[in-house]
Amino acid sequence: MTPETVLHAGPPIAWERMSGPMRGAIVGALIYEGRATAWEDAERLVARGAVRFDPCHHHATVGPMAGATTASMPVFVVENRTAGNCAYSTINEGLGKVLRYGAYSSDVIDRLRWFRDVLGPAFGEAIRRAGGVDLRALIGQAVQMGDECHNRNRAASALLIKALAPEIAALELPAKERSRVLAFAASNEHLFLNLGMAACKAALDAAHGIADSTIVTAMARNGTDFGIRVGGLGDRWFTGPAQLPQGLYFPGFGAGDANPDIGDSTITETVGLGGFSMAAAPAIVRVVGGRPEDAIAATEAMYEITWSESSAYQIPALGFRGTPLGIDCREVVHTGVLPFVNTGIAHREPGIGQIGAGLVKPPMEAFVAAARGLAG
Amino acid sequence: MTPETVLHAGPPIAWERMSGPMRGAIVGALIYEGRATAWEDAERLVARGAVRFDPCHHHATVGPMAGATTASMPVFVVENRTAGNCAYSTINEGLGKVLRYGAYSSDVIDRLRWFRDVLGPAFGEAIRRAGGVDLRALIGQAVQMGDECHNRNRAASALLIKALAPEIAALELPAKERSRVLAFAASNEHLFLNLGMAACKAALDAAHGIADSTIVTAMARNGTDFGIRVGGLGDRWFTGPAQLPQGLYFPGFGAGDANPDIGDSTITETVGLGGFSMAAAPAIVRVVGGRPEDAIAATEAMYEITWSESSAYQIPALGFRGTPLGIDCREVVHTGVLPFVNTGIAHREPGIGQIGAGLVKPPMEAFVAAARGLAG
Repeated sequence: MTPETVLHAGPPIAWERMSGPMRGAIVGALIYEGRATAWEDAERLVARGAVRFDPCHHHATVGPMAGATTASMPVFVVENRTAGNCAYSTINEGLGKVLRYGAYSSDVIDRLRWFRDVLGPAFGEAIRRAGGVDLRALIGQAVQMGDECHNRNRAASALLIKALAPEIAALELPAKERSRVLAFAASNEHLFLNLGMAACKAALDAAHGIADSTIVTAMARNGTDFGIRVGGLGDRWFTGPAQLPQGLYFPGFGAGDANPDIGDSTITETVGLGGFSMAAAPAIVRVVGGRPEDAIAATEAMYEITWSESSAYQIPALGFRGTPLGIDCREVVHTGVLPFVNTGIAHREPGIGQIGAGLVKPPMEAFVAAARGLAG
Repeated sequence: MTPETVLHAGPPIAWERMSGPMRGAIVGALIYEGRATAWEDAERLVARGAVRFDPCHHHATVGPMAGATTASMPVFVVENRTAGNCAYSTINEGLGKVLRYGAYSSDVIDRLRWFRDVLGPAFGEAIRRAGGVDLRALIGQAVQMGDECHNRNRAASALLIKALAPEIAALELPAKERSRVLAFAASNEHLFLNLGMAACKAALDAAHGIADSTIVTAMARNGTDFGIRVGGLGDRWFTGPAQLPQGLYFPGFGAGDANPDIGDSTITETVGLGGFSMAAAPAIVRVVGGRPEDAIAATEAMYEITWSESSAYQIPALGFRGTPLGIDCREVVHTGVLPFVNTGIAHREPGIGQIGAGLVKPPMEAFVAAARGLAG
């Protein structure tokens, strides 16, 4: 990571091929860093090669939607204590006009600066005083509380607040700032998303770099391409075109406004949460569409393409069966069953933000390419 | 309420017929109030008629297990804004050695004094600053997060903390006390229970006193008797013997140690939560026994004896069907289907506390007596 770098979601991509929301988020990140003042300014910086783009995944980092991450953004550090590696993620901004959906207006930038100056340091100190937070246990609880930890993080976020509030309440900050930190946390039902993603990344990185492994260790989208990495295939990405989600739109928007699938948040599906664990979160159909029985069926299908079941995450509605674990890229190809992904939907133009949520299928060609890579 | 009064759970009962945990809690309450120093002392007070016993229910109050409530205990005030009435409940003490399960040792009393001096005033001020907490909305969310709000309050308690933490963090208390308030809250997965009970009581009291109504407006147990009140039958209680729960015991305890069913917490079942909403809380079978499909079946059976379905509380696993609402005492008699109750289990001796949790059926004779009361 350098001051010139902007990390982004998904596999590598150049500015020219980036979608609207990805460009919007990058412009916002450059304004936030004080490197540009407006869109044209940022574009000039990019044009003269002053911005280095790199996937979050190449820095043990994951970011939802555009995933724009720059040097002065505070990040959570998630430790895989068994394997010894770490993963990182920024602080989730909530819904509405937010950087990750491609918005870059001054309120978006002001919020990020408050994250840098107040919220990030407050969370950091609280987490250190608490001696860390056991995210595996927290996710395990949340999965029994109706979350699938991708598009439903209501329980996980509340549990995180519960864990940190005693420390935040004792911080040496003005009373108003202590209150604001907890009010922001309480207002954000996706507070936990980025942390959960980093937990998934920390788990999956430990499964990466194992000779001959056919297990998918990352699925990620940059808004143009969908890509996967496989345990035994090093740092190569196997890609196909990012697809358009099918879902429910906010009033005034429709499928014609949607950007193709974007974000590193499919790291949750890669570990068997998100769309793979919809059976644990029947209420999510109110957000992504479908009926509760579709949520059950989605999870049941995912056992077809996974090798194992989690011992840490169990689904009460399936008799406490463990969540599907370990996608085998060959099984995806052999069975024709594609990973089940749920997702937020960004407007395809920069500056607008979220317009809905839904379900999306990855392109089969990414899995076919990986299976060929293994055979070669 | 007077300084001499000790409120207790369930229908009216004299000291002589009270069970062990009920007596233990009352002795503890008298020690807490400074009216006695030990068991013998408290017994003498009772013997000379210096203690007035009255059911919580006669004071718009509900208390879990023994329900011992005295004049200097801080209470939550739950307002039914539609009907204009209020209901009250003390602060939940958590698990382990606690007054409501009949423990009365000095740590139990010390905790209650901290409630009176610090926790109660802190919660009170935070709730006032927050402009109150919408409990109906909170319960509605919790029911979609795996709680049935009787023996599973994990989500509701976390949501309550989330609502109050921003205010508590700004209270003019020493940092250590602010932290202790939130740490206590976070440690208590039943923090919400008493509040939820008061919300049920506030709702049901509005359905009481309606001519010819056959709807059950309270079910409550004092550890000896189980009693119900019915909308059209005034303040009379219709009783039968409290039954022994069937459930899971903590290591070292068994059915022979169990006290018969005790507590006002069946107010949750009376409103259609608790055992009536087990389908929303499949993970509860780990606490009370059975399988997730038994939880679904329990809720489905309860639609047989209720008149309506809640519009505020919906169960995702049943396609967002409303929770069963409005027990008709005649339907219980006609169908032979008894209300489904889940419960904590107290040791039958005073001073010990909780020994397990399980399921219990009310005695049919209480419903038969009420149905006869309606016919007469």
